[in-house]
Formats: sequence, C-alpha cells, structure tokens
Amino acid sequence: MNVIEIIKKKRDREDLSREEINFIVESFTKNKTPDYQFSAFLMASYLNGMSVAETSYLTEAMLYSGKVIDLKAIKGLKVDKHSTGGIGDKTSLIIAPIAAAAGVPVPMISGRGLGHTGGTLDKLEAIPGFRTDLTLDEYKNAVKKIGVVLIGQTKEIAPADKVIYSLRDVTGTVESIPLITASIMSKKLAEGIDGLVLDIKTGSGAFMKSMKDAEILANSLINTAKAFKKQVIGFITDMNQPLGNYIGNWFEVYESIMVLKGEVKGDLYELCLSLAGAMIFLGKKAGSIEEGIEISKEMIKSGKGYDKFVAMVKMQHGKIDIIENPNKYPKSKYYETISATNGYLGSVNNLEIGMAALELGAGRMTKEDVIDHKAGIIFHKKIGDATHKGEVLAELYSDSKDKLKSAKARVLKAVEYSNKKVTGPKLIKKIIY
Amino acid sequence: MNVIEIIKKKRDREDLSREEINFIVESFTKNKTPDYQFSAFLMASYLNGMSVAETSYLTEAMLYSGKVIDLKAIKGLKVDKHSTGGIGDKTSLIIAPIAAAAGVPVPMISGRGLGHTGGTLDKLEAIPGFRTDLTLDEYKNAVKKIGVVLIGQTKEIAPADKVIYSLRDVTGTVESIPLITASIMSKKLAEGIDGLVLDIKTGSGAFMKSMKDAEILANSLINTAKAFKKQVIGFITDMNQPLGNYIGNWFEVYESIMVLKGEVKGDLYELCLSLAGAMIFLGKKAGSIEEGIEISKEMIKSGKGYDKFVAMVKMQHGKIDIIENPNKYPKSKYYETISATNGYLGSVNNLEIGMAALELGAGRMTKEDVIDHKAGIIFHKKIGDATHKGEVLAELYSDSKDKLKSAKARVLKAVEYSNKKVTGPKLIKKIIY
Repeated sequence: MNVIEIIKKKRDREDLSREEINFIVESFTKNKTPDYQFSAFLMASYLNGMSVAETSYLTEAMLYSGKVIDLKAIKGLKVDKHSTGGIGDKTSLIIAPIAAAAGVPVPMISGRGLGHTGGTLDKLEAIPGFRTDLTLDEYKNAVKKIGVVLIGQTKEIAPADKVIYSLRDVTGTVESIPLITASIMSKKLAEGIDGLVLDIKTGSGAFMKSMKDAEILANSLINTAKAFKKQVIGFITDMNQPLGNYIGNWFEVYESIMVLKGEVKGDLYELCLSLAGAMIFLGKKAGSIEEGIEISKEMIKSGKGYDKFVAMVKMQHGKIDIIENPNKYPKSKYYETISATNGYLGSVNNLEIGMAALELGAGRMTKEDVIDHKAGIIFHKKIGDATHKGEVLAELYSDSKDKLKSAKARVLKAVEYSNKKVTGPKLIKKIIY
Repeated sequence: MNVIEIIKKKRDREDLSREEINFIVESFTKNKTPDYQFSAFLMASYLNGMSVAETSYLTEAMLYSGKVIDLKAIKGLKVDKHSTGGIGDKTSLIIAPIAAAAGVPVPMISGRGLGHTGGTLDKLEAIPGFRTDLTLDEYKNAVKKIGVVLIGQTKEIAPADKVIYSLRDVTGTVESIPLITASIMSKKLAEGIDGLVLDIKTGSGAFMKSMKDAEILANSLINTAKAFKKQVIGFITDMNQPLGNYIGNWFEVYESIMVLKGEVKGDLYELCLSLAGAMIFLGKKAGSIEEGIEISKEMIKSGKGYDKFVAMVKMQHGKIDIIENPNKYPKSKYYETISATNGYLGSVNNLEIGMAALELGAGRMTKEDVIDHKAGIIFHKKIGDATHKGEVLAELYSDSKDKLKSAKARVLKAVEYSNKKVTGPKLIKKIIY
C-alpha cells in the first residue's frame, strides 16, 4: 500500500478501505509517514468528508493505536457520557455518581478545557488533593470498588488521537465531522464501555452553532458507536446560555454538590435527570429513560448520589472537608456585580460569557496557561426571566482587577434585554436513539 | 498575518489577497512555515481551486522568490515558447533558431524529462559537449550575440517552484490547474521575456487528456501571462500520436536537423511553422501569424534557421561535426522492427509509446536514472495512413535486449488497425489569443 495513492483516492472522493485507512493512520503514528503527507490527507478528508464506514475505520485505527481497557471482570453494563462541551456544563460531576448509585458502573475518561469551554478534569482538580492521573489499574480498581471513576486520558489510550489532533490544530482541519467523530469515539471506546450517552450542545456557546450541524455530528457519533456494537442515546441540548448558574471550576463543583444534595433545581437539574436517566436505562437498571429519570430523582432525594460523589472524591484522594463545608473554599481577591435593567433577558452571547470566564482566570487560552480554580461567574438569570433595574444579573470573581474590568465589559456586551415577554430556548431539543 | 488563517480561508473558499498568498509562499520558501501547513494549503487549493487573481498572485510570489532576468539592454521583443510536453515533441530545437534567425531574440529556459515525456535539455545534451548549465551572464551574452539560448533552470530562477513542486509530488497535489499555471509561469516570467507562445498538448500522450481540460489550462496560463502584461498566444495541439517520427534524445536532435534543413515535412514541420510564426508575430517581425509562417518557411529554405541552430550549438560548446554528419552518431547495440498489417493505422495509445521509449533507455523513471541518448523509437506511420503487411511500422533501438523485448510488446499493444479508412486527428485544434 502506498500513502500517496491513499491521499489521491480521498482527494478524488473514492471510498477508502479499512486496510487503507488503517495503513495511513498506523504509518503516521509510527513516524513512517511524514506529517506533510498526513496533513494533505487531513485536508482532503476535511473537504471531501468520509462515509459512515470510513469514519468507523478511522475510529478503529485510532482506537487500536493504543490499549482498549477490558472491564469484563466487573459486573454490569458499563456506561459513560460524552458532552461536546459548553459554558457551565458540569453534568459529568453529577450524573456519574447518580448512575453509579443506581448500580450502573461509570468508567469515565475525560478531558481538559481549552478556550471558552471548561474541562471536567479542571473542575475536579479544583477539589484539593483530587487526583485525575490514576493509572489504568487504579482506574479499574475504582470502578470495581465504588462503581465510578473520573480520570484524564493516559498515554496508553488512543495515542494516535494525540498526534493527529496536534496536526489538525495547526493545519485548519479541526472542524470536520468525521475527524471529530473518530477523535471522540476512539477515546470513549477505549474505556471498556457497553453503552454511551451523548450530549451534543448547540447554540451560541457551543461548537455546533446550528441545530443542523448538531444533528449531523450526533448522527455521525451514533453511527460510529453502533458500528462498534455499543448501545447509544444522543441528546441535542441547548447551549445558548450557561447551563446552571455557576461558571468556573470550583463554582461548578459547588453547584454540582448543591444539585446532588437536592438544593438546586432548574435547567441543570433537569438535564442531569435526563442524562443520568438515559445512562441508567442503557445500564439496564431501568426499562426506559423515564424510569431512569425517576430513579435519578430518588438517588438525589435519598442522598445516595451525593454519597457516591463523596466516595469518588475519597477514592481519588480529594479532601472531603471542603465538600462537606464548601463555603470554606478560598475566595477571589476581587469581585464585581453587573446590574440588570427593567424588562426580560432576551438573549445571551454565550461564547462571550465563556470568554469572560476564561479571562477572569477560569480557563486557559493556551495549553500552558495555569487555571485559577476559584475564578468565575455566577450568572443569575435565564433567557425569558423578568429582570428589574438594580437587580444583580451576574457576579464576577477574579484575582486580577484589570481582568475583572475587561470581563465585565464583555458580559455587558453579551446580554440583550427585551421589552416584551420572551420564551427561553428549549433545553432538550432532540433525543436520538 | 497568520498561516492557519490563510489555510482556513482557502479551505472555506474565500478569496485570498495578494498579501496573504505572498506571505504563505514566502514564509514556506524561507522555512518559516512548516511543510505540513503548506501541504494542507496545497490540498485546499487543489480541491477548491484558485481564481485568476489568486493564480497570478501565486505566480508572482513564486516568481519573486528568485531573480527576474533583465534583458532590456538587448534590442527587440524577447519571445519564448512553452509546451506542456508530449511524445516526440522537439519543436523547441527547431523554432528557437527559426525565430532568432527572423530577428526575434529567444531566451529559453527549459526542463528535463520525467516519465513518458522527454525534456528539451536532455535532447540538447545528446549533442556531445553541449552545455545547458550556462550561468545567467553567459545566458544574457548568448542572447545578445546570436539571439538564441537554451539552458536549464538555475538556482536563481523561482526557487519557490522547486520546493513547492517537491512537496506537491508527494502529497497528491500535482494535477491542479492553478498550481501548474504558477509553476510554469513563474519560471517563464523570470526569463525576461515580452511574449510567450504556449503549446498545450491534448490526447492520449498528453498531461491533459481531454480538449476541455486543455482549454482550461490554456486559459489559465493565458490569463496569468496577461496579468503580467505579456503578449501571449495559446495553441492547443494534438498528442494522440508521436509528433514527427523520431522519439529519443539523439533521434529527436537528428529529426530537428532534418526539419531545419528542409528535408522533412509532415506534422512536425507544420506545427513548427505555426509556433515559430506566432513567435515572430509576437516579436513584431511579422504582422500576423500567417506572415510569421511565411517568414519561417523562408528561414528553412534559406538555411538561416539551420545556421542559427549551428551557431547556438557552438555557443553552448556542442560539437559541430556530429551536427554536420549526424550519421556518425553511435548506434544502439540492438534493434527490433515491428511490422504492420494490412489496413489503416486506427489509433495509438501514445502514452504507451512514450513508456516504451522510456523503457528502451530514452527517459528516466526517477530523477536519478541515467539517460541513454541513442536509444529510442522511429515510428513511421501516422493515424489514417494505409498500412501493408510486412511493412515496417516502427524501429526500436536499445542497448538492452530485455528492454527491447518488453518495449516491443508495449508498442504492439499500443497500436490498433482499422479495415476502413480513418481520418487522422487535427494537428492544431485551437488557437487562443
């Protein structure tokens, strides 16, 4: 097989075989194919697309570039969730313990935040002592012992994804459905799962701005999961405003604790019930998503979900006293409030809210940036809420006065009020089986 | 300016500015942009194409990566010809001296052969002693003294083309109209010419198999030449059979001498008259192509064209005695003849004829191959010619018996006979001003 011929086939819109895709991925990963050839292949794939079959071959080649974890020794159907990310999306911290409490093992390997979206690992690391760098043996052991674990990608998992993503990042080939699909799925399939719940975000704060693009990505992910004989449910959910009210790493841990304790309802609570409900259904601990939702509610009411979260924090070396007394967490040096005006909250440029949080210190612009776990935004209103002059719309927290000032200007520019009553966006737009 | 943004614009079919194209070409040529980014740019350009303006910006950036020769001190309008190449295409050797004899200075920088098409430099180097590696000063001096020179590309000429072509060659991005256009034109515009005659070949032995593709390339080259305010005439000519009867480096020098001496007519002679006629017209030594053709005939009849050829060979250190006594040239160790059958020559797979000549030793498969100047084919018949059993269709010459055998098989497979009378292809299919 010849790399140039494979590039030319993709260039000419011919279908590539399993062997051809495996050959080019393997030879690139093993440094036998130079990056300039692989980047031409990436651009041809970006512009000409890939069939469902080609996408699953690419996923397979990337998956088997590393270790596929075997969790067969652990009883029950293992289920995970993947979200395409957004502002204030802390559902993993809530639904992983809920599903585990309901008897569904949740082996979750997650990522870090870059740009305007936060990362689950960064949020967990806001808990003093919490370790996301467990070994694969510790990972297996945690799933076995308490039914839930939440770690970062290890070197053994889909190493091809890392080198391919680095090249995509500098060659304008990131925003490609098949390449995104293979990147996500190769890592998820390595976890040793039987089922997967997908949360595809759409709206101003999401990677997929339009419903149409979100559906295309959802279907691509679902088709690939099915090609690997995994049970899968895809949710397309709203990201036109922050999910919940808290943005920033510790803030999001705090809000997660509140949801798990049953002290916070609203959009975040609702979405968590549905996602956890779907996980419980896929794990065959419920006969339907609806039944799974009822079980999830019960896990919150009974405190079993919260207890599982505490068990997970303990297992991963996090300090429990801060979970039990969250108000003891250090505070930012400075804060600012933004006042609302009379009317209704009409729209939010959610990307700008995410950028404001990033600026405050909650995120990283480059991989080398250091996160300030306590920085962030509390955004009190939802689109459609009535607002009154003088009322607090948002609170901003940072250790830098300058950043506070520029983030405040961003948030002010990002919100629009309406004189007339406004209907907020639908939270769950579509569920695809 | 940012290379990734430029790649993304091309990827998204947005028009690139002169500054952007110059930036990416210059930074790549100066090793500031890595090859993996430039190859993504090449693939995006291949798949999304380039506008006339973008193509001329690319040409300009490649042109000014090196030296643009200034021939203003030499009187008269300097005119060159470029051919896209084919089997038996030795017109440069004939028309350059003819145009020069008619008073039009011809500063020609030419290339080598690779694959099935021959290269003008290789042909000239079949003449013992002939030097194609003159310096730019020697080049200028030759044009000044005798009005014609034929050399190879120097390091000073469009160095960007060399590095870009090397990358295109290994990333499946060779067959792209704008990239081909910029590659050809950046080198031609560096010669210091005022006018250019283009010979775009089409047919089974040409790079452009279809008339449609040949027209697209012709128009792209013409538009780019015009963007640089050069006078230009494009010919689309047939390459469904060898041009003339001789294929192979010395064989083609021999046939060129015969045409210049007025001893050979036919398609080669006709095409040379037209191309030289157009050059003489562009050089303002004739009021029309037709008048230029008449002058060209006169240059052959009077022997002035041949004398100019001899002067050029002398100036470039070639041995004259072999030009004057071409039959003294060394012969191949072995030869084979191919007999015709009764009927008419119906069609020729001209690419296969080129491959057969290559196999005999007349060409190179890789850049490192060494050419056997005396090897080649004499192909006696033209499509439409009546053929008779036992008559010689072709003679094959090589120093290798094995290669002779396999080349013979190729030629046998490449020709088809017809029972009915056949009309040969039109030699000059279109002239575009």
